[in-house]
Amino acid sequence: MSLLTVGSVAFDAIETPFGKTDKIIGGAGTYIALSSSYFTSDQKIVSVVGEDFPNETLEDLKGRGVDIEGIQIKEGEKTFFWSGKYHNDMNSRDTLVTELNVLENFDPIIPENYQGVDFLMLGNLAPAVQRQVIERLNERPKLIAMDTMNFWMDIAWDDLMETVAMVDVLIINDEEARQMSKEYSLVKAAKIIMDMGPKYLIIKKGEHGALLFDKEMNVFFAPALPLEEVFDPTGAGDTFAGGFVGYLAKTDDISFENMKRAVIMGSAMASFCVEKFGTERLQNLDGAEIDARVESFVSLAHFQMESVF
Amino acid sequence: MSLLTVGSVAFDAIETPFGKTDKIIGGAGTYIALSSSYFTSDQKIVSVVGEDFPNETLEDLKGRGVDIEGIQIKEGEKTFFWSGKYHNDMNSRDTLVTELNVLENFDPIIPENYQGVDFLMLGNLAPAVQRQVIERLNERPKLIAMDTMNFWMDIAWDDLMETVAMVDVLIINDEEARQMSKEYSLVKAAKIIMDMGPKYLIIKKGEHGALLFDKEMNVFFAPALPLEEVFDPTGAGDTFAGGFVGYLAKTDDISFENMKRAVIMGSAMASFCVEKFGTERLQNLDGAEIDARVESFVSLAHFQMESVF
Repeated sequence: MSLLTVGSVAFDAIETPFGKTDKIIGGAGTYIALSSSYFTSDQKIVSVVGEDFPNETLEDLKGRGVDIEGIQIKEGEKTFFWSGKYHNDMNSRDTLVTELNVLENFDPIIPENYQGVDFLMLGNLAPAVQRQVIERLNERPKLIAMDTMNFWMDIAWDDLMETVAMVDVLIINDEEARQMSKEYSLVKAAKIIMDMGPKYLIIKKGEHGALLFDKEMNVFFAPALPLEEVFDPTGAGDTFAGGFVGYLAKTDDISFENMKRAVIMGSAMASFCVEKFGTERLQNLDGAEIDARVESFVSLAHFQMESVF
Repeated sequence: MSLLTVGSVAFDAIETPFGKTDKIIGGAGTYIALSSSYFTSDQKIVSVVGEDFPNETLEDLKGRGVDIEGIQIKEGEKTFFWSGKYHNDMNSRDTLVTELNVLENFDPIIPENYQGVDFLMLGNLAPAVQRQVIERLNERPKLIAMDTMNFWMDIAWDDLMETVAMVDVLIINDEEARQMSKEYSLVKAAKIIMDMGPKYLIIKKGEHGALLFDKEMNVFFAPALPLEEVFDPTGAGDTFAGGFVGYLAKTDDISFENMKRAVIMGSAMASFCVEKFGTERLQNLDGAEIDARVESFVSLAHFQMESVF
């Protein structure tokens, strides 16, 4: 099935306890597209970069089967840039620099041949922009998944509520779920958030795994792989989303049972992402490696039990 | 199989955002014994109480098949008392009062008919006292499990190291694992701690579940049940330990595969414990309820996956 990814294609500069990078390739759209490219060869992306963005990176995406016609290249403008520094526990970070640049007035133009796409993944962007994409599609995709962040809850709540009401799956982290619902209990938070519209909610808990809820309050818990070292968490959430929606597009099955598998696949892809700086680890995976990683999740989570009473 | 539990039988006074208790029955030994009593009717306990401790509680334990000959009742002395107040997130608490009383000079006397016990669960106590129990058993039990806490790491490190080297399974929480190993990564922490002696390590992560490691670094992850409300977390860790070791005693199988099931059973029992204040919820369970709860864990964690490549 075809997949349309919308998200930033950008530069990041990252500092972790393990090292520091200059400007490297980043952006939610990049991580999502790289991750989902292992599952579908019919992927399209909508994004925007400046004239400073390396053409080879765009060509690389193209080489992975990603249709890049929807990436606008703005002459005389600069690409979105984010710089951050992780704390020693790797669970929190400070943003050092955010230069919106081309993202400031991003008008998400949908090329004609993108119409009729089956799956839509809205990476973290202004909710008004995410909504524009949905509205510019002539036909509603089979499934719309969306990421967002607390920043939009702070400054664009009404927009966020409008957009959230239009999607099938919302993917956020625990802190965002708590802020969005004003509830500490994630079970209570899930109910409140799904009442805002989405049929499914995924709450990512970083090193503590991820929860998948549906409106009947079925719950699935995917563990995170216990790792010796998290080298760089940047992009792990986007990589998760890419693995999740890529797997759904590949299998063309949006049942709750298959969403469980998709969450495991997202977790597996994210576990690769954090092993190296930036997108490095995502660039050279193969099916056998991914299968082996999924096998680790099976062995991590699997048990069989009969009554002893 | 027979199980010997060693741990405090005590009074607690608890304050949570949901309410406040006067002195109620608590203590690691109490929670462990109550929890494991659902799995083995051949249980013995070693503990100490003051003359202020209600006889009906001891009789209740007896009625659950717990041999209480090893509970010393100290004339003219008072029972161990702990009082604590939970913060709003329920993940942290302040200790308001700790009166050691009878625990101050606890000499764990092993009744003659306790000898030859198959399983030993050492609840959180001074590591020197835990070691004394091991040394006073004529025969080494088939499996020795042990709980401890950061307090002993602070004030009795050498004693702790001696005792830890003698046990098969150490059960601690994530914060304690980090303090004990001086490593933030739980995978690295697990290696370091198992090098101190234990063949198996369980790291409890509260609402984030529990990890089971063996020395070959096989890992199993048991989720915690996502709950709407945690009413009172007191005793959840001890209840976990009781479910874990009780299940092992019932099934008489100490393979890694069966330990996985035991960890799930511990998690299931702990999920009941937090539903009401103190030991209340643990007093009236039945096999069908426990089976249904285990079923929730199966549905929470289970997925089946085949390669898509």
